[in-house]
Amino acid sequence: MEKHLADLSIKGLALTEPAVLSRAAKALMTTEQEHIAGYDGDRLAAILDLYVKTGIQVHSPGYMGRQFSSTVPLAGVIDFVSSVVNQPSSFYEAGQLPNVVEKIMADELNRFIGWPPDSFAMVTTSGGSLANLTAMLAARNDKFPGFWSEGSAALPGQARPAIAVGDDVHYSVSRTAGVMGIGEAQIVRLPLNGAQQIDMNRVRPALDAAERRGLRVFCLVASAGTTSVGAFDRIDRLAEVARERDIWLHVDGAHGASLLVSDQLRHRLRGIEQADSLTWDAHKMMFTPAPCTLLFYREKDKSRRAFRQVASYVFDEEPDVYTAMDSGGKTIECTKRPMIMPLWVLWAMYGRALFAEKIDYLCRLTRDVHRILLSEPDFETTHFPESNILCFRYRPGWVRDEDVHRLQVTIRDRIKLQGTFFISKVDIDGVAALRVVMMNHLITEEHFRMLLAEIRAVGLELSGDRQHVGGLR
Amino acid sequence: MEKHLADLSIKGLALTEPAVLSRAAKALMTTEQEHIAGYDGDRLAAILDLYVKTGIQVHSPGYMGRQFSSTVPLAGVIDFVSSVVNQPSSFYEAGQLPNVVEKIMADELNRFIGWPPDSFAMVTTSGGSLANLTAMLAARNDKFPGFWSEGSAALPGQARPAIAVGDDVHYSVSRTAGVMGIGEAQIVRLPLNGAQQIDMNRVRPALDAAERRGLRVFCLVASAGTTSVGAFDRIDRLAEVARERDIWLHVDGAHGASLLVSDQLRHRLRGIEQADSLTWDAHKMMFTPAPCTLLFYREKDKSRRAFRQVASYVFDEEPDVYTAMDSGGKTIECTKRPMIMPLWVLWAMYGRALFAEKIDYLCRLTRDVHRILLSEPDFETTHFPESNILCFRYRPGWVRDEDVHRLQVTIRDRIKLQGTFFISKVDIDGVAALRVVMMNHLITEEHFRMLLAEIRAVGLELSGDRQHVGGLR
Repeated sequence: MEKHLADLSIKGLALTEPAVLSRAAKALMTTEQEHIAGYDGDRLAAILDLYVKTGIQVHSPGYMGRQFSSTVPLAGVIDFVSSVVNQPSSFYEAGQLPNVVEKIMADELNRFIGWPPDSFAMVTTSGGSLANLTAMLAARNDKFPGFWSEGSAALPGQARPAIAVGDDVHYSVSRTAGVMGIGEAQIVRLPLNGAQQIDMNRVRPALDAAERRGLRVFCLVASAGTTSVGAFDRIDRLAEVARERDIWLHVDGAHGASLLVSDQLRHRLRGIEQADSLTWDAHKMMFTPAPCTLLFYREKDKSRRAFRQVASYVFDEEPDVYTAMDSGGKTIECTKRPMIMPLWVLWAMYGRALFAEKIDYLCRLTRDVHRILLSEPDFETTHFPESNILCFRYRPGWVRDEDVHRLQVTIRDRIKLQGTFFISKVDIDGVAALRVVMMNHLITEEHFRMLLAEIRAVGLELSGDRQHVGGLR
Repeated sequence: MEKHLADLSIKGLALTEPAVLSRAAKALMTTEQEHIAGYDGDRLAAILDLYVKTGIQVHSPGYMGRQFSSTVPLAGVIDFVSSVVNQPSSFYEAGQLPNVVEKIMADELNRFIGWPPDSFAMVTTSGGSLANLTAMLAARNDKFPGFWSEGSAALPGQARPAIAVGDDVHYSVSRTAGVMGIGEAQIVRLPLNGAQQIDMNRVRPALDAAERRGLRVFCLVASAGTTSVGAFDRIDRLAEVARERDIWLHVDGAHGASLLVSDQLRHRLRGIEQADSLTWDAHKMMFTPAPCTLLFYREKDKSRRAFRQVASYVFDEEPDVYTAMDSGGKTIECTKRPMIMPLWVLWAMYGRALFAEKIDYLCRLTRDVHRILLSEPDFETTHFPESNILCFRYRPGWVRDEDVHRLQVTIRDRIKLQGTFFISKVDIDGVAALRVVMMNHLITEEHFRMLLAEIRAVGLELSGDRQHVGGLR
């Protein structure tokens, strides 16, 4: 493990065919199915080696691909302890420290949100998608109290419930309408401006149009920032609209809420204190092992709206000071990993600065590499980076407009296969773009320049290979 | 850690007031909020000590309270590695070995279910509640294809969708109707027999009655076993009913599916190969850290019914041998912990026997302590234990019928406070019962006899204390 972490060479991904890897894994399994095999240290070492080697190399400067990150190794130690003591954190009696610590971390982070202490609530849940679903359930049940027991049959003749989202919202948000019986067709997609944010000039007209179509928008979801490009919607201005129309404002800050801990970057979430709920993934920009998602509610009572349940085996009939700490009634999970522990321990050991300094560096680096791209005529950028996500296209003179999309996809695939860098891609306005997410403070401008050189080398190969350029389409 | 695990003394729970514990935790946090504090080994040791000490003592023979368990410590080592290499397992490229291993474990466990290889599917998800929701979404979308995009408005004039469950089903199942827009009022509760199983003589009449009320039952949920008493519904006979009426049969085997790996106990799930879906928590009777839930579908294609999504940043337009392994489209999670790894490593290292022998022992122990209770005139049992859960009541001569409920609750509370044993309680037919769940192979009949002695001692105190007996009501 130590050797693995000490290896700082630039590595992307060594993709192995599933069938080949499957054979390798099976070869490591004991064949004594019917009797307990003895402990075999060599076997374990071989398993761990295979596990580490075939993974995405999150701690290498070659990894620029996605929003999960290398973690502070101490977090792994905490997870080891959590797995051995196995204290589920949905109920106080089962995991006392995790429950207390959730409250402490909520207070610590609320310093950057700004709600009055004791008026808000926070629960942890298994990932941003689940947090978004939970918050939107609370919104649905808050605005349509009969929906829980009757479904949409509770609303005969009324306008149909609908949810407004930015056109580039994370798929987990739009999917929620399908999950919770609103119907995905009742997603109102708000148009974006050039910066890929919800276009504030077109929000009210879009909501008016939805109303004319017989929809009642009860929930508005802002992204902070978007998955594709890291764009931050204008929370303060969306909050105004939400207030005017009695709409629940949910902020999907899975990626970007962590910017709140940075004095330099907090302003991207201006108005966050007016949101009704906020999803915050600590396993993204707080660099903890996944999952560690925090779901905040501005009003404490609203956190009880998402679910209703009766179960005498876990819920006591006479609440006391202990059961008042239970969160089981507010999350989908009954048994839940004490996911707050790695985050809290890092915070307790190192304080806010560990996070703020790293976030500041990564966002600065992303602005710097954006500047590099502006001076390279064979590249185009699609947006100014508001956080640590940057999308761009390789667009040399020889490529025809209609081949630009295919070229990016081919380049991404080739880069991935070469195994030095790992980057991702995303479609922007229907055309693929290359995408880097800077999650590792070991990455420097120099690494990015190496990536550009590799992209150009791939491009050169492709341009020289007539057959391939033809095949691009 | 080693010292903690070596301590096999009989310990229940040392409950600390949240405010007190909160002060202790805060005292361990660095006050240098603004600068990165150095690594402080003493601080870390104190944090870990507090974490371990205040937890539920799952590895002590005094812990008989709930369905999560002590884990094989090796599982903790794997979780340490998982947290450091941080490979999310929803997409093959991010976590190659976890993805391959999910398929291997699915095949290994399917040997005990019995589906043709390659015709079924398995996904991992964060807990049994989420697995139940996911399966029931697949059922809803399978039986009402328009529901995803239109909600229940897709069914004007038709019978209303409804879900039939045993009256003692886990709360996550009945809650699902409220979550997914079916409406909790459309839960049809099937009456139980004396063994707390769904009463097969009353299933068809109950479904007929539901139909007359304008309901269309599209999903039937069997428990294997129930949370309260570990009762196993008759899957084979429920499957017959489901087939007759074109109903999706989901089996909530969160607790009991693990009995499939035991040759002695597999028969409790007779007919499981006829289920459409099955929830299986490895973090219960497979003794892995929570969560590790496996959701099986009999038909592979049906596993794609739960969700629909489009997202160019993670889903590729041209599927290949790698992306064919992706499970992100079949689970609520986008970033997902490689929760299969501890289970697979234990299985790879020790084979099935480790699990089967432990499960056999725990269920035999539970039958043995049931036999003990039968010969104790001041105790009554509420059921024959089909697995490792047993409920019973302390019922000495002096207690009035109307005080029986309150007596059990008081005894549970006192036992918990004394801190030697940790047991739980559940209401059965409206009257509280004491509940033990045998999850630890270090527990013997002797420990159970000690528990009975402690219950009697508490009872004696209460009977001697007139005020308290009066206060029982």
